Amino acid sequence: MEREHDLVAGDRLWKKIWFRIIYRADTRMGKLFDVALLILILLSTSIIMMESIPKLNKKFHLCFIVIEWIISVIFTIEYGMRIAVVKNKKNYIFSFFGIIDFLSLVPFYLSFFFPFTKYFLIFRMLRMLRVFRIFNLLDFMNDGFVIVRALRNSSRKIYIFLLFLVIFSVIVGSLMFMVEGGRQGFETIPQSIYWAVVTVTTVGYGDASPITPAGKFFAVILMLAGYSIIAVPTGIVTAEMRNKRQNLEKVCDRCGNEDIDDDARYCKQCGKKLA
Amino acid sequence: MEREHDLVAGDRLWKKIWFRIIYRADTRMGKLFDVALLILILLSTSIIMMESIPKLNKKFHLCFIVIEWIISVIFTIEYGMRIAVVKNKKNYIFSFFGIIDFLSLVPFYLSFFFPFTKYFLIFRMLRMLRVFRIFNLLDFMNDGFVIVRALRNSSRKIYIFLLFLVIFSVIVGSLMFMVEGGRQGFETIPQSIYWAVVTVTTVGYGDASPITPAGKFFAVILMLAGYSIIAVPTGIVTAEMRNKRQNLEKVCDRCGNEDIDDDARYCKQCGKKLA
Amino acid sequence: MEREHDLVAGDRLWKKIWFRIIYRADTRMGKLFDVALLILILLSTSIIMMESIPKLNKKFHLCFIVIEWIISVIFTIEYGMRIAVVKNKKNYIFSFFGIIDFLSLVPFYLSFFFPFTKYFLIFRMLRMLRVFRIFNLLDFMNDGFVIVRALRNSSRKIYIFLLFLVIFSVIVGSLMFMVEGGRQGFETIPQSIYWAVVTVTTVGYGDASPITPAGKFFAVILMLAGYSIIAVPTGIVTAEMRNKRQNLEKVCDRCGNEDIDDDARYCKQCGKKLA
Amino acid sequence: MEREHDLVAGDRLWKKIWFRIIYRADTRMGKLFDVALLILILLSTSIIMMESIPKLNKKFHLCFIVIEWIISVIFTIEYGMRIAVVKNKKNYIFSFFGIIDFLSLVPFYLSFFFPFTKYFLIFRMLRMLRVFRIFNLLDFMNDGFVIVRALRNSSRKIYIFLLFLVIFSVIVGSLMFMVEGGRQGFETIPQSIYWAVVTVTTVGYGDASPITPAGKFFAVILMLAGYSIIAVPTGIVTAEMRNKRQNLEKVCDRCGNEDIDDDARYCKQCGKKLA
Repeated sequence: MEREHDLVAGDRLWKKIWFRIIYRADTRMGKLFDVALLILILLSTSIIMMESIPKLNKKFHLCFIVIEWIISVIFTIEYGMRIAVVKNKKNYIFSFFGIIDFLSLVPFYLSFFFPFTKYFLIFRMLRMLRVFRIFNLLDFMNDGFVIVRALRNSSRKIYIFLLFLVIFSVIVGSLMFMVEGGRQGFETIPQSIYWAVVTVTTVGYGDASPITPAGKFFAVILMLAGYSIIAVPTGIVTAEMRNKRQNLEKVCDRCGNEDIDDDARYCKQCGKKLA
Repeated sequence: MEREHDLVAGDRLWKKIWFRIIYRADTRMGKLFDVALLILILLSTSIIMMESIPKLNKKFHLCFIVIEWIISVIFTIEYGMRIAVVKNKKNYIFSFFGIIDFLSLVPFYLSFFFPFTKYFLIFRMLRMLRVFRIFNLLDFMNDGFVIVRALRNSSRKIYIFLLFLVIFSVIVGSLMFMVEGGRQGFETIPQSIYWAVVTVTTVGYGDASPITPAGKFFAVILMLAGYSIIAVPTGIVTAEMRNKRQNLEKVCDRCGNEDIDDDARYCKQCGKKLA
Repeated sequence: MEREHDLVAGDRLWKKIWFRIIYRADTRMGKLFDVALLILILLSTSIIMMESIPKLNKKFHLCFIVIEWIISVIFTIEYGMRIAVVKNKKNYIFSFFGIIDFLSLVPFYLSFFFPFTKYFLIFRMLRMLRVFRIFNLLDFMNDGFVIVRALRNSSRKIYIFLLFLVIFSVIVGSLMFMVEGGRQGFETIPQSIYWAVVTVTTVGYGDASPITPAGKFFAVILMLAGYSIIAVPTGIVTAEMRNKRQNLEKVCDRCGNEDIDDDARYCKQCGKKLA
Repeated sequence: MEREHDLVAGDRLWKKIWFRIIYRADTRMGKLFDVALLILILLSTSIIMMESIPKLNKKFHLCFIVIEWIISVIFTIEYGMRIAVVKNKKNYIFSFFGIIDFLSLVPFYLSFFFPFTKYFLIFRMLRMLRVFRIFNLLDFMNDGFVIVRALRNSSRKIYIFLLFLVIFSVIVGSLMFMVEGGRQGFETIPQSIYWAVVTVTTVGYGDASPITPAGKFFAVILMLAGYSIIAVPTGIVTAEMRNKRQNLEKVCDRCGNEDIDDDARYCKQCGKKLA
């Protein structure tokens, strides 16, 4: 998220006005701007999707191209404006949304040379995350924040879990390769590992499934394991989320500690009696 | 739920009697009425289902039509009665169940003009939710209420989560479209997005599954992600459900302890007898 | 579980001795008896499984029949003994395990008249639940008990949830029937409901999967819903399990209340200060 | 994990130096050693995977063989070194990682006689678990430890759950065998049990799926059951994980409060400064 506080001050009046319109949603114009942006993003992504459908692309090819051009030009101007009206330009450019704004333009210009890259324009959808502000600012942001924080705080545990899972899948996949010989879907070890992941995550496409009794027995064990260890990420995130819930409640008015449990009577950081 | 309290008073006697029979289940007649309704709903939905089976429909077509007519006429009369005996008619008509009662009639009459709409009669099944009263009124309602409230309270977080998930699936689907070219199941971007959702939710039909090594590698990452983020809605609802268990409760007026169980007679923090 | 306390006393000596051997595992003979039983159960179920494999059945048919006869005779004798040595015979016969013991014999005798019923002998496997006693008696029983109690206590909530799910699946299935016309896997409404359950529970066989864009869009919504509401049973059981965990800890020595939270300082039933 | 403390002391200087390099990651050489090991492990497992791909194996067969030889020789020397520099050799050899180190060598030498065993070399990947030390030692180890401990502490409950699940699947599979006759995927009872596990764990390959209406009805019940009981392992692990966060902690020596967070400096119940 851009640290917008230090961007507000200074410069000429038009910059201030436009800054408010572009970066905030607390004025009528600002809201309108965000809504317009939202519509353009949705339109742009819809067109990219429709372009991929041969039948539609054949019929409306020119139409798609024109709209894409218009939207891309608008987005380019908008990107220029964003840089122009911001005080600390470097901060914006390298902020999370600054990078996304940039990435949502590049594929368009790149596609002149590499037509293939056009579909990367779908990344424009990420810009939608910014436009959340239009809606109930505080509550939604807060809830989204709780989720993001819970995920971030438990990310290390989840990485470890995923690493375990990958090592586990590699080993199981290799064993399965030995069991199922080179049957369909188990032709190579990487394919068997792919099958192991498909199974342990309970996705189960069925493009590869064991045929020999030994393979089936093996698969049964793997499935039961997958069914049990799905509890681990859940346990991690749930514990974290319970945790986080409490943060929002009260604050210690002596030391500013915000991590106060429901049943606490004294601040656990400074020992002050809580109100 | 209809606010029945302000519907009880006044009017002539037969309205009062019928009101009690139709809207309540605390008299013998009232219970009988609800049981009869339950049977009619089940019968009606069974017939709609059976009608969709060509073999059965051929054999019993007339029979089905007749029963459907009879049930629909009964339901129409019942709907009229419900309006007639209620004092605040507007309240009932626009209540949750009032709308369902109406919707469960409309398709029948519409089907004279648009035969297609007949299957919407399946919405009658929603009326079953009302008939729950027949059974252990308090406990079941309470438990159902806890679930509904936990879902409602965490709905905003779940919406945000689903939005993330949709944006994520759109982006992943588009990338997969680029990876898997236009192979079977990945012919267009929308189809690839469909595949992404099928995968990330661990449903895994297998009507589309990656074939190229790059696609499989990509799918493995997506599956592991899906396996991990399933923890998020679980964490949200679990935290909410734990919450609800306590929020409802009482407070000790000596020590201010709010963590009081349903069956507690004394405060577990200070030992004071609870009111 | 049989209430064994009131079965111990009285009668002649051999009954007492055999009672101890059959119903308990605290003597050497008792443990041996249980181990022998466990082996017979496993042998019996293995043979039933193997009998279903044509190749094996052809080869070892006679062998299977003989072993089945022997085991069934032993089980019949054992069942007779169980009744003979128990004081309160009615209590045993209608206890959970008494019924299972009976049910694991019946199919054998029935299969003389209805060969089909033979496979019901697989219910013998349930007898394994009894033989758990051989292993670490207290801890395992306790843990199993915690699971069973958490499930039982949350069963009402889970029933309601399942009813919601069934109504939801019926409605979604019917809508899908209208969307997907009568395509493969969606020929009738019951089949579409079957598909809806397969999807919402994230099983996803792939024997039926939407083909039309509208159907796929619809399926995506269903999958996202299923992915979110899987959180509900998890939340229910988790909350219950956290709950139950506390039950085992301390007891109030005045009123015998066993439902004491970790942080309680006073019994919430009688207000006595806890040690 | 090896108890390294009692391995440090004594012996000649070179042993001490090499011990530090091999078993620790707190010196520059020690880190380099671990990184080199990590690369060799990854290289080794990559080659085993690639060998299983006929096309690659044909082209680079000799190359693969040579690298495998080199790595195996290095690992053999390393294993020898590990034994040599450790004081309490028996402790190392029978430690978790000691056994893995040994197992990651054996298949190479065995493969001279049984070429088939070569793929067991994939177990080398487990050695990666040791190399975690290179990264943020404390935090990652701690988090991994929390997961492992939560799993270990709830393992008994999970075993019981899995046993229930297996018995349940065997019974359901047998019933399904009776329902679906000998149709494709349900030819024998073991195959039907395999299907039951595939279904109840929500994997759902689709290699076997019910065809008869009765079978589908049955499958629906099984799926709903599977969807509900997935909550059980989650509940177990989540409860355990929440637990662990607190069990580890300290006690307030004034009020006996045991619910003290990691970062607490004062008791939240009585405000006393914690030691």
